[in-house]
Amino acid sequence: MADPKHHVVKPYLVTRRLHPENQETPIQFIENDRIQTSLFYRRNHFSYPNLTYSNYFLPINGMVNTPLLISLQSILQLPSKTVEVVLECSGNKRSLFEPKVFGEQWGKGAISQGVWKGVPLRTLLEISGIKEAAKEVVVEGYDFGKRTDLDKVFSYTRSLPLEKAIHPDTIIAYEYNKQPLSFKHGFPFRLIVPQWYGMASVKWIKQISVMASPFNGPFQKIDYMYYPNLENDDGAHPVTTINVNSTIQKPLDMAKINTGKHVIKGIAWSGKGNITHVEISTDNGHTWSKAQVSASKSSYKWVSWSYEWNAVEKGIFSILSKATDSSGQTQPIKPYRNRNGYGYNAIDNIKVMVE
Amino acid sequence: MADPKHHVVKPYLVTRRLHPENQETPIQFIENDRIQTSLFYRRNHFSYPNLTYSNYFLPINGMVNTPLLISLQSILQLPSKTVEVVLECSGNKRSLFEPKVFGEQWGKGAISQGVWKGVPLRTLLEISGIKEAAKEVVVEGYDFGKRTDLDKVFSYTRSLPLEKAIHPDTIIAYEYNKQPLSFKHGFPFRLIVPQWYGMASVKWIKQISVMASPFNGPFQKIDYMYYPNLENDDGAHPVTTINVNSTIQKPLDMAKINTGKHVIKGIAWSGKGNITHVEISTDNGHTWSKAQVSASKSSYKWVSWSYEWNAVEKGIFSILSKATDSSGQTQPIKPYRNRNGYGYNAIDNIKVMVE
Repeated sequence: MADPKHHVVKPYLVTRRLHPENQETPIQFIENDRIQTSLFYRRNHFSYPNLTYSNYFLPINGMVNTPLLISLQSILQLPSKTVEVVLECSGNKRSLFEPKVFGEQWGKGAISQGVWKGVPLRTLLEISGIKEAAKEVVVEGYDFGKRTDLDKVFSYTRSLPLEKAIHPDTIIAYEYNKQPLSFKHGFPFRLIVPQWYGMASVKWIKQISVMASPFNGPFQKIDYMYYPNLENDDGAHPVTTINVNSTIQKPLDMAKINTGKHVIKGIAWSGKGNITHVEISTDNGHTWSKAQVSASKSSYKWVSWSYEWNAVEKGIFSILSKATDSSGQTQPIKPYRNRNGYGYNAIDNIKVMVE
Repeated sequence: MADPKHHVVKPYLVTRRLHPENQETPIQFIENDRIQTSLFYRRNHFSYPNLTYSNYFLPINGMVNTPLLISLQSILQLPSKTVEVVLECSGNKRSLFEPKVFGEQWGKGAISQGVWKGVPLRTLLEISGIKEAAKEVVVEGYDFGKRTDLDKVFSYTRSLPLEKAIHPDTIIAYEYNKQPLSFKHGFPFRLIVPQWYGMASVKWIKQISVMASPFNGPFQKIDYMYYPNLENDDGAHPVTTINVNSTIQKPLDMAKINTGKHVIKGIAWSGKGNITHVEISTDNGHTWSKAQVSASKSSYKWVSWSYEWNAVEKGIFSILSKATDSSGQTQPIKPYRNRNGYGYNAIDNIKVMVE
């Protein structure tokens, strides 16, 4: 009668919206660096597409020497590439902006990582060949629908500059953590663009088009742009590389804890290089100490860090974490405010009461 | 290959803490008025207890005429009572206090309801008989552990005034929604105290003791007390009846929506009587309109309400909901501030951007 399974305690995705499905990873409760599929954050612009896999063919067209229609099986037979990559939604931590910004109210969990296996996009483009005038590679997903701001129907389509498209680590992935890619994460093929925010990693790839001129779809030129001005579009520029960032996983924000030793732990990541150090403050930024940082084999992944804190006195403490990467970028005190709330990467902070 | 199950989109519990397990109901995404067990909020003070059910006996002692040790089977054979009851954690909505209050950072989902079947506590007390000096009934749970503020080990134990204990709807429940009570919600027996905040509804009942003098356990006299003063204990009084309250489920806070008609919907509840009306404002409280309220057969349950809003103009709108109950209580503009953040019931509010 006392089934031990009843005692299993586990975290779940945090539901932000159901239609389309937007759920975040319970990042405070993640202890490994390869997120299981069921806890990988889900970010959709539209309802899930209906695909028929039995006759799946991938068209590669536009400014290519030989337009192609490649079968699923042919792609799987090409030489594969495996990369360990963090994906972070550019709206991650949006709910932390003050004042608040409209849009999905992501907490700190619109981020996940694991092992992706696939075929370099470069390999496919080498097969088709690309014309000299080629400037961008546009990747269209099978997902489509209406937007709140425009009347037409659009598919989710994004463009990459040629240089990023032919980077050997930009892949068309079909496996995640050594399992076939799950439907919700883009089966049969999704793009994985290391070091860029997640909007670039198009799911359910329908078509690849090489272009000589800039792509102007709404997910390229309306969404995923930093608008520094609230009133006009002056200074608008595209969201691309992941900012240096860190998140405190433990203790929990607003927790009551005992006096004594506590491990402060978390993760840090950057799309601009390796994390070189993470500093922790337990006095709201007056003094800083270096955290122990786990060695990372890949600069595309987050690192874990920890710091042992001896809480001698009772009272309220603000705990901060601040990461620095090999490009010299450090988390700022205040986030870069922009109209749509992308790229939040201010120094992370929580409060605890020691009693 | 295209398994339709892949398209299932469902909400999950929102993880606030794992040890002990504290997870809230994804209340914005709940559409029925009998919450399934898997989405019922979980609030624990300690890790789950280890019980042996094979020789479970419930002791009833203290100021009784005949101390008893009743078997599980005997309790199941007594006349049963079924009640539909909302349980709300007294810390529900704690995260909405400004400035923030330490403790579990519950959002709006530390509330659930359904159909409970059990034996009235009164029936058990009639079998044992109670002495004239009896004043309180103390119910002890099998869950125990250390607190952050005291050195000793305590079990989770709560007391009810005799009047509430012998109310015919205060039951020892063993079924929820027509299924055996699940382990995590108190199997084999939990108290259900209608109209009171959830701290009264002790899970995994170990012992019932009738007392002639006030019970002074820490979950009675330290926790679950309103402390109006931050610096001292002046004016402290116990948390008991659920305050009149309402929650907007739709639209989602900080959502971007189209112009046109939208249904604003939510729930309202009170421990002090029936909900008589719910008012909605779409202009930050300048004008109010009555929402349609579902008829409720039981004053122990929440009611659902809805209001059709025609969003003609673009812009930012603050939407408020305000419930009133048959005792004349209405939600206040500001919450009742108290040191531990119990009983939050300010007018609910969300913002939307119409574009």
